[in-house]
Amino acid sequence: MRHTISVLVENQPGVLARCAGLFARRGFNIESLAVSTTEAPQTSRMTIVVEGPEWVLEQISKQLYKLRDVIKVLDHTGDPVVSRELALIKVKAHPDARNEIMQVAAIFRSNIVDVAADTLIIEATGNEEKISALENLLAKHGIVEMVRTGKVVLVRGAKQT
Amino acid sequence: MRHTISVLVENQPGVLARCAGLFARRGFNIESLAVSTTEAPQTSRMTIVVEGPEWVLEQISKQLYKLRDVIKVLDHTGDPVVSRELALIKVKAHPDARNEIMQVAAIFRSNIVDVAADTLIIEATGNEEKISALENLLAKHGIVEMVRTGKVVLVRGAKQT
Repeated sequence: MRHTISVLVENQPGVLARCAGLFARRGFNIESLAVSTTEAPQTSRMTIVVEGPEWVLEQISKQLYKLRDVIKVLDHTGDPVVSRELALIKVKAHPDARNEIMQVAAIFRSNIVDVAADTLIIEATGNEEKISALENLLAKHGIVEMVRTGKVVLVRGAKQT
Repeated sequence: MRHTISVLVENQPGVLARCAGLFARRGFNIESLAVSTTEAPQTSRMTIVVEGPEWVLEQISKQLYKLRDVIKVLDHTGDPVVSRELALIKVKAHPDARNEIMQVAAIFRSNIVDVAADTLIIEATGNEEKISALENLLAKHGIVEMVRTGKVVLVRGAKQT
């Protein structure tokens, strides 16, 4: 099963390596990970998407808690969350195809953020399914390169998680 | 100096831990890191923002290349890039303040993606400065929690990097 885990950590050198190492030692492949600063200075928040059996993930959660600089671990399975990621997609866009690509971009409420003679860069945000659907539609034109941030989530409602 | 580095890797367990470990062993604090899949199956792309002297970063680049599963390392310093990140910000929004918050959100072309009795979640994308400016404007209302993806970049123009 697929899990999305938030890990709040002190912003110290080595904490990311220690967390990633924990997953690696158990042979877990991290599908995506995004880590950056939060509203609190000196605190970072990692959002990790990983596939694996529930009971192993529970073990990993417990072990994450024992690591230096880890403040809080949350498995969002079943939580009502807002889930978003961002992608930049460089797509081949010969003058003939440009119009069609711009229409697709508009339907997905994505933005053209760079134009070259025969390529465009599209900035898209949404949940994973939306980004993948856009990627599939653009694939026929030829995707030159793409970068995705990986998913970040916040639990809906007023509570601080 | 601040550097943004892209690392293309084979999508294998442990590669993230090995890369992060390399920075950690030299006491470098990773400011943000985003890793997810790319246009090529079995390949992931990490975007790492890190502060440090040029010559040490060069050494780290060389050592990253030697790691198993690392395909390519690019330091984007001086490159013309499109640079974006995404943030979800849960902000206190008492009925009196909601109107002002919605105006600020609109000016920043950000979206309200969740509404509770006295909080809102705002989804914002842009470069780092824009996200930070929005965060500062919302701070007076009280930020309940915030998650950021960290920066991703693509080099402008048609070339595959």
